[in-house]
Order: sequence, then C-alpha cells, then structure tokens
Amino acid sequence: MRIAYPELFDGLLGVLLKLGFDQERGSLCARLFTDASRDGVYSHGLNRFPQFVGMIKSGVVNVAAEPELIAGFGSLEKWDGKSGPGNLNAYRSMERAILLSHERGIGCVALSNNNHWMRGGSYGWQAADAGVIGICWTNTLPNLPPWGASDPRVGNNPMVIAVPRAKGHVVLDMAMSQFSYGALASYRMRGEQLPVEGGFDSAGMLTRDPAAIEISKRPLPIGYWKGSGLALMLDMVGAILSGGCATHQIPADPEKETKLSQVFIAIDPAAGQTGASVNLADQILEHLQSPQPADGEHVRYPGERVLQARKENLANGIPVEPAIWRDVHGLV
Amino acid sequence: MRIAYPELFDGLLGVLLKLGFDQERGSLCARLFTDASRDGVYSHGLNRFPQFVGMIKSGVVNVAAEPELIAGFGSLEKWDGKSGPGNLNAYRSMERAILLSHERGIGCVALSNNNHWMRGGSYGWQAADAGVIGICWTNTLPNLPPWGASDPRVGNNPMVIAVPRAKGHVVLDMAMSQFSYGALASYRMRGEQLPVEGGFDSAGMLTRDPAAIEISKRPLPIGYWKGSGLALMLDMVGAILSGGCATHQIPADPEKETKLSQVFIAIDPAAGQTGASVNLADQILEHLQSPQPADGEHVRYPGERVLQARKENLANGIPVEPAIWRDVHGLV
Repeated sequence: MRIAYPELFDGLLGVLLKLGFDQERGSLCARLFTDASRDGVYSHGLNRFPQFVGMIKSGVVNVAAEPELIAGFGSLEKWDGKSGPGNLNAYRSMERAILLSHERGIGCVALSNNNHWMRGGSYGWQAADAGVIGICWTNTLPNLPPWGASDPRVGNNPMVIAVPRAKGHVVLDMAMSQFSYGALASYRMRGEQLPVEGGFDSAGMLTRDPAAIEISKRPLPIGYWKGSGLALMLDMVGAILSGGCATHQIPADPEKETKLSQVFIAIDPAAGQTGASVNLADQILEHLQSPQPADGEHVRYPGERVLQARKENLANGIPVEPAIWRDVHGLV
Repeated sequence: MRIAYPELFDGLLGVLLKLGFDQERGSLCARLFTDASRDGVYSHGLNRFPQFVGMIKSGVVNVAAEPELIAGFGSLEKWDGKSGPGNLNAYRSMERAILLSHERGIGCVALSNNNHWMRGGSYGWQAADAGVIGICWTNTLPNLPPWGASDPRVGNNPMVIAVPRAKGHVVLDMAMSQFSYGALASYRMRGEQLPVEGGFDSAGMLTRDPAAIEISKRPLPIGYWKGSGLALMLDMVGAILSGGCATHQIPADPEKETKLSQVFIAIDPAAGQTGASVNLADQILEHLQSPQPADGEHVRYPGERVLQARKENLANGIPVEPAIWRDVHGLV
C-alpha cells in the first residue's frame, strides 16, 4: 500500500497535535518521520511512530521539553535535552551547530538527556541542505557485545557523516553493528541467509543464520574488534562532552531507552572563503563509479539509495504497512 | 634483539641530522619514530624508517619544508604541508588544533600536501597528553576496493580517536581495511589463516587465506559496505576542507605516495569549565571489562596494548629487526 506524502504527514501531525505538540513542533516532528519513510528508511519512519507515541504516553518522552543551553565556550556548546522528543532535540542541536559553523568555521553541540533521535541520517541531510559538512553520532542502550565478550556492553551507536553536493548530497548513516535486529528479522522472515557473517550462534561460531543471532543476541560489530572499539569511543566522547549518560547508564529496555548522549558537528567548507571546492565531491564519485575492469555490481555511494527511494516514493506514494497505518489513526 | 630507547632514538636522529634536519625538527621526527616502536607499532617505527629515508633521497619528502597557513576562520584553519616530513607536519597540525581547542572549545586543522604521517596514533596520544579529545584522519593512495568493485578505488584511510584519562589514555587507531598488507604478510609467514574473513580470493570468494588476498589485491573494508562508505567520506571531507588531493589523485605507487589530505580536530572537554567529567572514561572501561557471565577472553580497550608494550619495551628494550637496525646505520 502506498500513500501520498501529504497524507502520511497529515496523519502523523494529527496524532502529535492530540498528544500536546504545538503546531510548529508537531509539524517538524511529523516531517522528520514522514521524510524517513519517503527516503526509504521505513524502520525509523512510520514503522517507528507507534513506539514513539507509546513512549510519550508512558512519560519517557516529554512533549513540551525544549533543549537548554548549559554551557558554551567559543565553538563548543553543551545542551540538555531535558527528555524532549528525540528528533526535535537533535534537529535543534544540528541547527545550532550549523549556525556556529557559519560564524566560526566549525561548531560542536554536545547534547545530554535526549531520547532516541529516530533516523540519524536526518541530521546529516539537514547539514548538507544548509551547505555544510555534518558529522553526528548518538550512543544507545547496551545492545552489542564488544569483541571478546558475549554479552552486550556497548551500543551500536549510529554515526552520520554528510557532505553537501549540488547533484545530491553524500550521506553515510551507519550503526556500529553489521546488521540491526530489524535487518536480522527481515532476512529471517524472507527465509534468507545473511550475505556475510553477521554474528555468533549460541555455540560461539560465526554464522550467516539470522535466527541463530537473534537467539544468541550476539550480533557482530562492523570489522569485529575495530567497530567494537569505534562504538566505545563514540560513547565515551559523547558522554564526556555532553556531561550526560554513557551506554552502561542507559536503561537496557528499548521501551525505556532514554537519557542518550549525542554530538553534532558542523563544518562550513566556505568559511572565510578558504576556497574549498565542494565540486571535488563530484570527481570523487565519478572515480568511484567509473566502469570496472572486471565484471562487478554498480558501486554505490552513501546516500544514493536514499535519493532513489525519495524520487520513487514522491512519484508513486510512500509504501506503508497497512496495519501500522491503520493503527496510527487509533493511537489517540 | 632489543635495544634501549635512547640508543634507537640517537641512531635515528644521527641519520636525520645527516639528511639535513636541524636539531629541533630532527629530534621530534626521531622521537615520533622511536615512540612508535616503543609502543609496539613496529610497522610504523624503525621498520618504516628506511622507506622514509628513501623518500627524502628521491625528493618526495622535503626535509626543510614547514606547513604554511593558507586560510583561517574562527576555529577552522587550512594549512599547506608543502611536502614536508609527514609526521612533523601532522604533529604541528594537531598542536595547532589543540591550541585552538583551548581558545575556542574546538579546533580543526585541515592539512593538504602532506606526506605519509607514519603512525596515526601519534597524534591521538599527543592530543590526549594535552588533556583534550583528539580526532584525526588521513587519506591514502587507492589501496582498497570499495564494496561492489574488485579494483582499489578508495584508500584504507586510517582514523584516530583519543580520549585523555589519568590512568592511561584511550586511543583508537584504525585503518578502514580489516587487515593491512603488512598484517596479511605476517599471517602468511607464520603459516596461519586469518581469524576472520579478510578479503576475496581471485575467484571472488570470501577467504581467510592471507596469501590469496595478497594475490587478488582484494582486502575487505571493515564491515564490508559500511567501512567502504566510511573510507569514502573521510577522503571526501579531508580533501574538501584542506583543498588538497583526494585519494584518486594520489600516486598509486607507495614509494611516490604524497600530497595526502588530513584533518585534525581537538576538543577541550574542560573548555569554559562546562564541568565535563573525564572520570567517566574510567567508569566506561570498568563496565567494559567487568567479569563476564560466560567464559570469554579479556575484553581490551583501544590503547591498552600500547600501554602494555610501552611498559615492557621501556623495561626490557625495544625489539628491533637486526637487519633493519644495521641498515639504518648505512643509510647515509
């Protein structure tokens, strides 16, 4: 089932207004969810909305809370998210980092006490739309065993890097786990094996069987020991700079996951007219995608699938799960 | 064979002075090489020194060149490395970023036209020794096939993240390839298989056979498509901000690899006395390394092996390959 962008947006906004959002904040929140589905990131668009509403109703997310400046020094600022809606706080933080980057070349906002920011890529596209380079990451609840351990001690801590480009921004949006639990479930339901090893089974052997990893709860960090280390560093830097919680201090129940620490960095390549050429991005992608000497797949750049999905979904409507879409109307 | 730190340092410094370094720059350069060996990073310590000397003799590395400020705007500066010694330029760039971070919370130096920075971790330890968070990366020559291609189109682009800690800094120093060619050769010479799949063989199958990957020249990016995307982004951001070369513009011959683009970011967690607690790093590591519910190895944190090697090598002498150590004395 596909529905037009305005229909999805209006449906979500209607729910948010009934939950106490004002028109401006409700519109931005609804847009961020709708954009995620429009861009093919269904897991963090409409499909995530019922859980978001549940966390408002349970009091984890405070609809009215706005981020508060705790301290600022030059290009570095520390904000408290006060348990407000995660995507609104994240959007405001990147907005502030972008402003700092225009004034000072680079800006960094460290945010404590935020809720799940939903689709991380949103804030990368936001930065690139403003013409600046964006780098941001979040910590999460402990959901990933670090290399050498069998129980979850680090988060999959998604990281986003975005570069603006006239022909379409280049935006990497990746978690530190090789496959999310959502991806594992999708492979299992399609009866498929993973394309590469995705975790350990309960006997401690590397496996491509998604169900075995869901049972063992031992998904792999990207690059084994390397992504394990990167996930740790992202948590450490985010918690230290924001003064907020580290992964081990975050409730391990996804319905209660809150008090996340996040970092938003924006760098203005045109700051001070240093003559940086963003056209270089075109050349880099041309080289990446030049014809191959041997047979091979099309080499994709980060963000390419998003632009394809966006175009298709704006033309043909956004795919929605009928049951979830129906449920949304009964959420309040 | 092991030799004491001062003996290794004096030996390298003697060569550098004969090559035209002045006392101050020669001492810093020799210290960075000696520290790498002291810290167990032998591939980028003494073992790399003969190649460095060769590149001075061939004119790729200009001993006398010093970095020049091209443009600055607030916390963001652009420097030209002018083909000077890679580790000196990198050290000066991180030094400048650290100073900016003290003045403005965060500092970012983008450096063009640098030579190979040798051990990337050096500049992470440098930042942490100064009490600040350091993030830096470099691009490289094309040495890694991106996901979907069989020929090298991206660099393995090492990235470093460092957090200061009184009990020992936490420093991640990782390239975007799962195994370096040096690591593949080590496994092959020991007659060992890789612990995990490290690349494709010439038939296009994933393999743990190091020799097969050396032949196919198809090592894996960390996390397959994920590290492939991250390597691309690091190249793009570095080349755009510095105004220097991207990976595809760098000579593919390691003996002629030059004009690299690098980024150095320092963030002062104490800036403006925002009350950020670096002690949180201790708590995070305690949780990471707490006793495991199931049997498992010791979980290591990034930098832990470095501190172990440093302690052992300062006590017992630094291991050196006798042939390389002998050759160094005949280099000039």
